[in-house]
Amino acid sequence: MGIVVQKYGGSSVANAEKFRRVARRIAWKRQQGEDVVVVVSAPGDTTDDLLEKAGELTSSPSAREMDVLLSTGEQISIALLSMTLQEIGCPAISLTGPQAGFRTDDHHRGAKISHIDTRRIKQELAEGKVVIVAGFQGLDQRGDITTLGRGGSDASAIALAAYLEADHCQIFSDVDGVYTSDPRLVPTAARLDEISYDEILELAAAGAQVMQLRSVEFAKQYGVEFEVLSSLAPLPNEGGVEQGTKVVAALSPHNNRVVSGVAVDSKVARITLLGLPDRPGVAARVFGALGKAKVNVDMIVQSAGTVANGSPNADIAFTCTRDDLDLALEVCQEVLTVFPGTQLVYDIDVAKVSIVGSAVASNYGVAATMFEALANTGVNIELITGSEIKISCLVRASQAVDALRAVHDKFELGKSAVPVSGK
Amino acid sequence: MGIVVQKYGGSSVANAEKFRRVARRIAWKRQQGEDVVVVVSAPGDTTDDLLEKAGELTSSPSAREMDVLLSTGEQISIALLSMTLQEIGCPAISLTGPQAGFRTDDHHRGAKISHIDTRRIKQELAEGKVVIVAGFQGLDQRGDITTLGRGGSDASAIALAAYLEADHCQIFSDVDGVYTSDPRLVPTAARLDEISYDEILELAAAGAQVMQLRSVEFAKQYGVEFEVLSSLAPLPNEGGVEQGTKVVAALSPHNNRVVSGVAVDSKVARITLLGLPDRPGVAARVFGALGKAKVNVDMIVQSAGTVANGSPNADIAFTCTRDDLDLALEVCQEVLTVFPGTQLVYDIDVAKVSIVGSAVASNYGVAATMFEALANTGVNIELITGSEIKISCLVRASQAVDALRAVHDKFELGKSAVPVSGK
Repeated sequence: MGIVVQKYGGSSVANAEKFRRVARRIAWKRQQGEDVVVVVSAPGDTTDDLLEKAGELTSSPSAREMDVLLSTGEQISIALLSMTLQEIGCPAISLTGPQAGFRTDDHHRGAKISHIDTRRIKQELAEGKVVIVAGFQGLDQRGDITTLGRGGSDASAIALAAYLEADHCQIFSDVDGVYTSDPRLVPTAARLDEISYDEILELAAAGAQVMQLRSVEFAKQYGVEFEVLSSLAPLPNEGGVEQGTKVVAALSPHNNRVVSGVAVDSKVARITLLGLPDRPGVAARVFGALGKAKVNVDMIVQSAGTVANGSPNADIAFTCTRDDLDLALEVCQEVLTVFPGTQLVYDIDVAKVSIVGSAVASNYGVAATMFEALANTGVNIELITGSEIKISCLVRASQAVDALRAVHDKFELGKSAVPVSGK
Repeated sequence: MGIVVQKYGGSSVANAEKFRRVARRIAWKRQQGEDVVVVVSAPGDTTDDLLEKAGELTSSPSAREMDVLLSTGEQISIALLSMTLQEIGCPAISLTGPQAGFRTDDHHRGAKISHIDTRRIKQELAEGKVVIVAGFQGLDQRGDITTLGRGGSDASAIALAAYLEADHCQIFSDVDGVYTSDPRLVPTAARLDEISYDEILELAAAGAQVMQLRSVEFAKQYGVEFEVLSSLAPLPNEGGVEQGTKVVAALSPHNNRVVSGVAVDSKVARITLLGLPDRPGVAARVFGALGKAKVNVDMIVQSAGTVANGSPNADIAFTCTRDDLDLALEVCQEVLTVFPGTQLVYDIDVAKVSIVGSAVASNYGVAATMFEALANTGVNIELITGSEIKISCLVRASQAVDALRAVHDKFELGKSAVPVSGK
């Protein structure tokens, strides 16, 4: 058989019982004849505990020393997990990130993997052992410990799968996959059996709570396909079925769906600039200033055509995150001083509802179907933007969930996907 | 100036306030113009917490994995201490044992230092930094993490002092030196300004609670002289004086004392074999069997001369630790079956009182003075043994403390030593 890389997050190893559960799942995989390499995060609250300890001593810890401190969390995990496997008769060995061959740049607390020297891992696999690797960490050229930043364990697993040319990469957490929408908001949301990198990136950008974006970007870059699974699901040898969501480069041919998921983002604000002169360079001036101030502008709509005081006027509306609102207003205020008679208004009672799907742009009528669903529910659309694989509508915040459900139902997402196991 | 190696134990870094205190002491030393290298142990109860976590998962953890687990304790300490120093404006860098160049054999949980590659430490010192090194740990030839076993941080500091050719090696703990006797038992006990390796080793063997024996043996082997100091004492720049006990190869000429300390060991038991045939080979048979069973025999006295049933008989008495008593009795019972008419008795209401001093054997009358002190206090001596630098007497357990005080007073140890600071 081949090599399987599994990754378990901190919540999967939060206590002794969970360690045992993870160990049984790993041992089962090995019994299938696979070479198993496991990447594990720090247990439960360990990282927060360490941050608190540092916080008692300094308000501005050096990034290098934080990496020395925080990397102990995963080191505790790998030792305990290896012991637990040995206890149930499964040969195992733990390796820290540096021991496992992870080499990175020297950007402490946000290092990038430059290379993985997999010799030691392969040697241990050849000796029949499960290899437990500390995620999130590596060594820079100077021999200093680095960390990849929070959530970096997913990136560790994906990079390892690439360097080992693994047959499978499985990311375990406390969710069993990617859903057509947030099940807390849309009760009929269904787990997808597969989703493309681009779809998952767009869903996240559209406000969906999906896994670490950076890991998906990383997977896309390395061409590593992986599966998102739940570590809480019954073990395959205890009546469970190993099923999650595969994150792939391109959907399988049989997956000819147009829309993969719908998402809502309530943390947005709309800013409207009224009565701007309708001439070249005005929009550039506004968004140039916003860009310089590092305000992330999302939807943009310019409505031209009115005439005031004898010259053509235009309104520009855009959205940004709530966090950026104050800064954006300040920047716009500054720009508007040049244009007398203009007006600045904003609105935080808005939300963005989006549909995402690989074939959104190439299928006629998708946008129309979405608008129809919203209209049937009495939801007014305030702004619209679209990309190759996404269409977003800004609606009243109070209507956001209704809008989300209506669109989800209209595209029959609850039916098109694999039913949720155990529900 | 030169290089100073300081070592701080776990109780010195048990909480944030203690970290700050240790940092101020280090910063002061650096202000004196010294290059400072600090070896630090795991904070407070960290090691016990980690052992407990492992204990929940397995009753027989592999030594290799325990080393991966336990070495995180010191790694937490070095990062936090380095941050604390930086916070008060003292340039510092942390290095794990492996990073600091500690190379060991592969005897996990009890590894021996084979070599220290000090290049990185020297490089950091040259850049003006205080170097904080994780004690107790190293790397074996395979690249695996090893630990030196409990208390190994002292050994790390002493070995480092040797490899760096340091001018001073200071071991800080919560006691301010080595005392002429246990101050809890002998209120007049005084701190010694210096003591030899051999004296401290004999004092420990005599039951005194002194620092890790192995570290002293190590210091003796490397020829490193060090100083035992209290991390609780006032800082030199806060009115304190840096004073402890120097542990040296040979006492200074002005230190012409005969006895350095007295100690009591209450964890002993006496076994007596009565009526053994008084002929060659009998004692060898008894102690050969005890040695084979790994019973550590301490005092031995053979009293020959009685005649029973027409042949000369002898009694053999010896002491061992209470822990070894059952085993020793079992072994003796076995041996005695060969000699009919013999008897086996034991006594646990005994204690051993010893005097230790470099010049004990070379000074006439020392033993007599000790016996006189005991006689004047009404203490009966049951067994006596002596070595070059030690004389031990077995006495009734109930009289042990009185005996200890009487001997301590008789040799005027409370006066001959430096008075205890702050008392």
